Amino acid sequence: MGAVVLCRPSPLEPTKCDNSHCPQVDPKMLNIHLVPHTHDDVGWLKTVDQYFYGSRTNIQKAGVQYIIDSVVQSLLRNETRKFIYVETAFFWKWWKLQTPELQEKVKKLVNDGQLEFINGGWCMNDEAAAHYQSIVDQMTWGHRRLQDTFGTCGIPKIGWQIDPFGHSREQASLFAQIGFDGLFLQRLDYDDQNKRKAEKRMELIWQGSDDLGSFDGLFLQRLDYDDQNKRKAEKRMELIWQGSDDLGSAADMFTHAMEMGYGPPSGLNWELAGNSFNQGNDDPIIDDPESEDYNVDKTVDWFINYAKQYSNNYATNNILFPMGTDFYYQSAEPYFKNMDKLIKYVNERKAKGSNINAFYSTPTCYMHGIHLSNYTFTTKKDDFFPYATAPHSFFTGYFTSRPALKRYEKVGNNFLQTCKQLDVLSLGNGKNEEKMTALREWMGVLQHHDAITGTESQHVADNYALILYKSIEKCKSVVNQSLNTLIAKSDPTLNQLFCNALNVSACAVTEGTDNLAVTIYNPFGHNVNPVIRLPVTTKNYKVLDPKGKDVKSDIVPIPPAVLNLAERVSKAKDELVFKAELPALGFATYLLKANGPQNGVNEAKVTKITEAFNIKSKSLNILFDKTGALNAIQLKDGKVVDFKQNFEYYKAHDDHSGEDHQPSGAYILRSDGDTPVIYETGLQSELVETSDAKEVYQKVNEYISQVIRISENSDVIELDFTVGPIPVDNKIGKEIISRWETNLTTNGLFYTDANGRQLLERKRDFRPTWKLTVNEEIAGNYYPVNSRIAMKDVKQDIQMTVLNDRSQGGSSIKDGSVELMVHRRDLFDDVFGVAEALNEPGFDGKGLQIMGKFWIHFTSIAEAAEAHRETAFDILMEPSLTFAKYSGSEEEYLKSHKTQYSGLTKELPKNVHLLTLEQWKGSSYLLRLEHFYQQNESQTLSKPVTLDLKDLFTINWKGSSYLLRLEHFYQQNESQTLSKPVTLDLKDLFTPFVVTKAVETTLSA
Amino acid sequence: MGAVVLCRPSPLEPTKCDNSHCPQVDPKMLNIHLVPHTHDDVGWLKTVDQYFYGSRTNIQKAGVQYIIDSVVQSLLRNETRKFIYVETAFFWKWWKLQTPELQEKVKKLVNDGQLEFINGGWCMNDEAAAHYQSIVDQMTWGHRRLQDTFGTCGIPKIGWQIDPFGHSREQASLFAQIGFDGLFLQRLDYDDQNKRKAEKRMELIWQGSDDLGSFDGLFLQRLDYDDQNKRKAEKRMELIWQGSDDLGSAADMFTHAMEMGYGPPSGLNWELAGNSFNQGNDDPIIDDPESEDYNVDKTVDWFINYAKQYSNNYATNNILFPMGTDFYYQSAEPYFKNMDKLIKYVNERKAKGSNINAFYSTPTCYMHGIHLSNYTFTTKKDDFFPYATAPHSFFTGYFTSRPALKRYEKVGNNFLQTCKQLDVLSLGNGKNEEKMTALREWMGVLQHHDAITGTESQHVADNYALILYKSIEKCKSVVNQSLNTLIAKSDPTLNQLFCNALNVSACAVTEGTDNLAVTIYNPFGHNVNPVIRLPVTTKNYKVLDPKGKDVKSDIVPIPPAVLNLAERVSKAKDELVFKAELPALGFATYLLKANGPQNGVNEAKVTKITEAFNIKSKSLNILFDKTGALNAIQLKDGKVVDFKQNFEYYKAHDDHSGEDHQPSGAYILRSDGDTPVIYETGLQSELVETSDAKEVYQKVNEYISQVIRISENSDVIELDFTVGPIPVDNKIGKEIISRWETNLTTNGLFYTDANGRQLLERKRDFRPTWKLTVNEEIAGNYYPVNSRIAMKDVKQDIQMTVLNDRSQGGSSIKDGSVELMVHRRDLFDDVFGVAEALNEPGFDGKGLQIMGKFWIHFTSIAEAAEAHRETAFDILMEPSLTFAKYSGSEEEYLKSHKTQYSGLTKELPKNVHLLTLEQWKGSSYLLRLEHFYQQNESQTLSKPVTLDLKDLFTINWKGSSYLLRLEHFYQQNESQTLSKPVTLDLKDLFTPFVVTKAVETTLSA
Repeated sequence: MGAVVLCRPSPLEPTKCDNSHCPQVDPKMLNIHLVPHTHDDVGWLKTVDQYFYGSRTNIQKAGVQYIIDSVVQSLLRNETRKFIYVETAFFWKWWKLQTPELQEKVKKLVNDGQLEFINGGWCMNDEAAAHYQSIVDQMTWGHRRLQDTFGTCGIPKIGWQIDPFGHSREQASLFAQIGFDGLFLQRLDYDDQNKRKAEKRMELIWQGSDDLGSFDGLFLQRLDYDDQNKRKAEKRMELIWQGSDDLGSAADMFTHAMEMGYGPPSGLNWELAGNSFNQGNDDPIIDDPESEDYNVDKTVDWFINYAKQYSNNYATNNILFPMGTDFYYQSAEPYFKNMDKLIKYVNERKAKGSNINAFYSTPTCYMHGIHLSNYTFTTKKDDFFPYATAPHSFFTGYFTSRPALKRYEKVGNNFLQTCKQLDVLSLGNGKNEEKMTALREWMGVLQHHDAITGTESQHVADNYALILYKSIEKCKSVVNQSLNTLIAKSDPTLNQLFCNALNVSACAVTEGTDNLAVTIYNPFGHNVNPVIRLPVTTKNYKVLDPKGKDVKSDIVPIPPAVLNLAERVSKAKDELVFKAELPALGFATYLLKANGPQNGVNEAKVTKITEAFNIKSKSLNILFDKTGALNAIQLKDGKVVDFKQNFEYYKAHDDHSGEDHQPSGAYILRSDGDTPVIYETGLQSELVETSDAKEVYQKVNEYISQVIRISENSDVIELDFTVGPIPVDNKIGKEIISRWETNLTTNGLFYTDANGRQLLERKRDFRPTWKLTVNEEIAGNYYPVNSRIAMKDVKQDIQMTVLNDRSQGGSSIKDGSVELMVHRRDLFDDVFGVAEALNEPGFDGKGLQIMGKFWIHFTSIAEAAEAHRETAFDILMEPSLTFAKYSGSEEEYLKSHKTQYSGLTKELPKNVHLLTLEQWKGSSYLLRLEHFYQQNESQTLSKPVTLDLKDLFTINWKGSSYLLRLEHFYQQNESQTLSKPVTLDLKDLFTPFVVTKAVETTLSA
Repeated sequence: MGAVVLCRPSPLEPTKCDNSHCPQVDPKMLNIHLVPHTHDDVGWLKTVDQYFYGSRTNIQKAGVQYIIDSVVQSLLRNETRKFIYVETAFFWKWWKLQTPELQEKVKKLVNDGQLEFINGGWCMNDEAAAHYQSIVDQMTWGHRRLQDTFGTCGIPKIGWQIDPFGHSREQASLFAQIGFDGLFLQRLDYDDQNKRKAEKRMELIWQGSDDLGSFDGLFLQRLDYDDQNKRKAEKRMELIWQGSDDLGSAADMFTHAMEMGYGPPSGLNWELAGNSFNQGNDDPIIDDPESEDYNVDKTVDWFINYAKQYSNNYATNNILFPMGTDFYYQSAEPYFKNMDKLIKYVNERKAKGSNINAFYSTPTCYMHGIHLSNYTFTTKKDDFFPYATAPHSFFTGYFTSRPALKRYEKVGNNFLQTCKQLDVLSLGNGKNEEKMTALREWMGVLQHHDAITGTESQHVADNYALILYKSIEKCKSVVNQSLNTLIAKSDPTLNQLFCNALNVSACAVTEGTDNLAVTIYNPFGHNVNPVIRLPVTTKNYKVLDPKGKDVKSDIVPIPPAVLNLAERVSKAKDELVFKAELPALGFATYLLKANGPQNGVNEAKVTKITEAFNIKSKSLNILFDKTGALNAIQLKDGKVVDFKQNFEYYKAHDDHSGEDHQPSGAYILRSDGDTPVIYETGLQSELVETSDAKEVYQKVNEYISQVIRISENSDVIELDFTVGPIPVDNKIGKEIISRWETNLTTNGLFYTDANGRQLLERKRDFRPTWKLTVNEEIAGNYYPVNSRIAMKDVKQDIQMTVLNDRSQGGSSIKDGSVELMVHRRDLFDDVFGVAEALNEPGFDGKGLQIMGKFWIHFTSIAEAAEAHRETAFDILMEPSLTFAKYSGSEEEYLKSHKTQYSGLTKELPKNVHLLTLEQWKGSSYLLRLEHFYQQNESQTLSKPVTLDLKDLFTINWKGSSYLLRLEHFYQQNESQTLSKPVTLDLKDLFTPFVVTKAVETTLSA
């Protein structure tokens, strides 16, 4: 799995911003780095705009416009002061409103190292539920704004993940590949942290590669409480975290774990405006010796004592005090004024023999101090999930919270990629920039650790969804225009129509009976053959393929649960179903001829299930019992294994009383007991037979239904489920899971993905780096499942892999079993600040209904990767459908319109993914290709692949410069020859490209 | 009663600050003056330093350093912004900490009219309990700092009394004499206010004199609720208030009453930092049309509608919105940023036909708009006491609250005058400036409307007292040094010792038995003959007068109630009592020869009282009943009238429940019922006879005792009382009064002083300017009594006048009776912000014990003034005692030390008071003389008097310039000739003075 390299300045560009602006670290002193910062959630209790403008102070006294206004003024007043700013979404909003005069002053602050951008993505993204494609996008977009505005000195050098609720290995790997010098974090398991503190392992060097050598560390925060406690105990809050086995030293990074949260020491909190969570109530420094309240001596004594105690957790003579927290510095001057005094009076003590040296600093300057210390730190390989703050407070509920929003975000990412690709393929050449920016930015916002996580207030979640909708709408005009250009520039009447509600089988366009040209765009770099399902109100359709040939199609009844969804507005009772064949990075148009004879349309056969039966897929045989429930599976080699599935629920711990005061909620998963309740109301099922597939329509109970689809052309078992509204009449919150049980021997091991990329091994009731005390059997074993969860029977050589369509929490609570949490409804706030129960009202206020989908593979272990990696991209990069009415004959349409198109001369190799293709600055393009197989997971596809970029794209690139990123796609050591670094001469390689200075290549191994 | 003229610039000095900086008022528009301001209490819930530095935010989020810091920065950022600042105590504290560079910038802001000082005294003084001498001092000191720092442009032009709880006529008169152009107030009786609003009489012109013509108005606030309601109803919140009958147009002033409190309209409150009382929770202006929360149109609509409604209360096309309130603008920029937008978008509406013109303004610029309107306003003569906000919420409790602090403040003023005078008389020539400044400033602080009022928190009251103590201690070194210089410059061993606890008859110095030289300094301009009482532990004293002659003296037992005071630390059981004869503005030294024979010492005779008896004073005969209680009095002409006195208490209304939610408390007096409880436990009394006086020691109950002193040399009846701790075991708060009852016919009329100066006629259950509905028979008839309360029987030609030693509330609840409230102890907070019950712990935590004193005159009406005006100054300017040990013989001491001294060649005329004598800037002096009799109150002393300043002072003035203020001391029209203006040639008048440019004279009639 190769490196993904984000937008970086050319290494040839002279660097103006070295560490010369950093304060003098005194090697003989204990150096206290005071790092003024603000943590500005890109939405949480208030929406992005409410936070920016500072409205709705009744919810939270927080206005980012005031923060940046006042910080800039305070920096201008005293050149020794420093400040870091993290969230580019807010900074950019502010920047656009400033006068050119003030902008110039801010540029000087940046160039002088007074104002430093840290992290610098569009937001500080969540690390559990965010997909790596979106993390890469949001980091790229933030850094692009900063680089465009401030040049080299605006580019962040440090990862600062101080609030996400646990930390992902993939995030660390990405940050290393971005070129960050260090990672600063804070939320690690309390046990882990305690251990690290005791052993002065709160910091460690991530061994950076020489290629990325200009960067040093990553500051982040949330890991399992147990982990954290151990780390604290052992002084392992800072560590070298080996982000990827593949990147060697290039993915190693210095990591610093903060000991005291990311807020200031409790005696030094001088925030004036504050908010309800973190008011600064500490007495200011009163330095008039005449005053009754003179407190300089007391304050300095306290500070020195505190600093010495704090330094016991760290190995070097540098310690970092984060001076700020959520939405601090709305009124910066009071805080700076008191820090000015603090620094002055603390340093005056040196004349009396004190060895404490205090100064304004930044993480970059802190790294500088660390480098000077020449200390050798310990290393770490595992991740920081799950995160817990206390024995019963596991942050594993948010892996599933707000499942509809989590799905909508994936839809947004999919459409953003489609939109950006089509803009390029149609040679938009910058004219669509603004229309795409809204979605680029809002997808950046959604990666925020209180957005995609589902830990925001309900009204904020509503706002996230509303603006995502609006941003998608803006991009639709790009897709429409781009498709029309590609299909028939010459047809000015061509207009692509969209259906937003296809997920609930509703579509005003298809439900009319016009003749329709259905254009299906495939953003994936491989050819795909998806089954297309269109809600229709008539069975009189004929489907023609792009060449005008009849296509086999079925009329299939829409499952009753879908028909009954509260939000569904449709008269359609059936779907027209056919299989499409789509070229890589391209489209095919299918013609729907309405009101014609029912040629080729097969009407599905529906029968009530009363006896056990089986359905054969391409090479498997799936056994059901007489209720229609899954029972067993016969594999290719004839082996039959148990294969059962149930919807079940954990009772939410809804109690504020007692010792723990820890209910289940938006952040926290806490079950009452370890055994879920199985719905035993008696399954009612029907069998629906189409021309090449069989579907089992299951009704579990009044609010849970499922369709199991098995095709004779494939071995993927598809499960479409509908859940909700979850009843809470009995005052018990419910955490609903889908659990699969087999008789495989799994020895406590299972596998979950990290941000949709690497698969990590998990072991039940176990942490790799400290001895876990199991206090929460369920919550403590939950891990984020962004794309898939798997288990293996090594002896029998069987792997079962379940893929999902959005991020969820999942685990293997007993051997042979995996489960995913699909929906949650809790009745109490879990006391981590959101101050609302996770009790989504849904469309009609009765409770949220969701639809979701699983894809299940049973394979040999060797074949598993090929199955699930391809399926994962089928899901992530699913095709987009648009509809155009045509009035003439099919023949006329086919003649005058392009019905088949690919942006590639041929599909990409099976192990290469086109991660990014978008118009970049001016006439340049941003292209990212990745080898998406992990080391050793596939005999064939894990191997290196050679890709000839020459003539790869069918498009006639314009402009004279391109931003092209190539990756070395071999894993370390997997090949004696090809794993080695390689030098590539771009000039010879791409004859059609004119290579200019703007071309940038980074080859890393 | 002549004008007191404060520190003003020479009228010849060219004025840089005209109204040219004011915004353009549009005569065709409704002009909205947005006046950004902050109201910074000089102590209330926090101490002065806690407010200045912003410590103890748990109590209140308020830090004045941040306010001025941030306002200055915001003014510098936009030259259209304006701000007013009021309290010089805080401003000066801030100013001293600034860099010269910033000071220059602030000077420019002042010169440009962006930052304007309003009111500008050391504080915004209370108008009920503050004495005019201290008001004059505190205004002078504030203005001096401003004038010294900023020159002419720093001098306030406007009175801004927006928070004091009712308004005094004397205050208005003083402000007119200061030269203020206008008076802005807000707290008037709700009924008064309602009437004024209805009649558009919220504003009126106070007819300024031509002499003071460069000033225009006064902004203030608290009057009786009933008055206020009526005023609101009749639009009489602004009025011409004739401050004094004597000054004619020179004491008339434009007065503006604010309709909505002194805070911003509720929709425009953008205070970011805020405090728990006045958080700014209004949404900021969101002017991004793309935002879901865009609110410009809504906000402008609201503003225009609100402004139009508000303007209905006012007569001209100008209205004033006070944009700020308590401790606002700690973070100024957010507020200004939103006001900038508001003004912009409101004025943009003009293009669409709006007639609303909004701009930043100040009261000065508002006055400018008023002048342009050319409107003729109504007038008013009475004052704004008592103030009520609702039918049961009368702000008349604070007239008495914290009686010990109210007395200590008077002690402070007395010692400050003594200190300043002695500094001048000893030709300190500036060397004592710093030592005196502490007390000057702290006495200024104590005039604050939450200091002397007793409406501060307990810990703040403690701090006021502590720092008053420390400031007095600093001044003691000046008194010591000055006296030593005057007594014997040649004796370097001379050291004056002080006794702080003489009020409780404790003094470590006199309780030793050394020989002592007791120097008694008289700061009054008249000779006085006080009785001196010194606690002693032996009876072996001989007292010698300044010439060495024996002085008649008595040994008198200290009353048991005093002996038992919790805080008293003394072994003395007796007092040595003798009469001293003191020259005006000078001292006499008496020698106490210890351990000698008891020559001339008379030991008082003590007998238990069991029968009725009488005591003769100089010309009266006072009759007691058999319990020792006052019973009747026989006057000079033989008439006998009833004369009874009781200590009684009102039950405090301690109930939060019910409709009114209005308990009695620090601000509010609310009695349960109108009839006080009389202590009927049976008086126990003793008669103590000394050589020329008789004293009745009364024990009323366990916590109330009294000594009645009647001397054969005088007709003043003295009552020394001890009250406390008030028991609250029965959970009932108590409002303790001393009530005197006679059979005089008083017709509902009585008289109370205004700030210790003018006597105003009061009528029970009546207001001069609106029809009062009597809801609170007691509280609604209480008035501030700063120095005296009186009643008259016109038919019998009898006046009874009671003088007190501190400010109290008083009334005449029934005919023939007057009462003063002496002590209060309440158990509930009265919900006006202080959030504490007025439940003073006292020395030992068991409840405050107080001692106090009354002086009673029975005279003919014609003779009353001479009696009470002289006594009032005897009390206010009481002598200071210092003690020096001497080791040689008395003869030696008398030979080598000056034992008699006067700073005057002769005492001042009987109707002239030396109000101020102090070292001023450089080598100049500030001298104020006043004629202190009111028009027609005395046949002889109300008349004009001629004073020859030549050779008046015995001191050899140094320096070449003096600041001399002379006043025309005739009242208007009281003399056909002498009431007219007069021109005085200083050069001829004072031959010893070198008249230079710095000499300033203001003669006003």
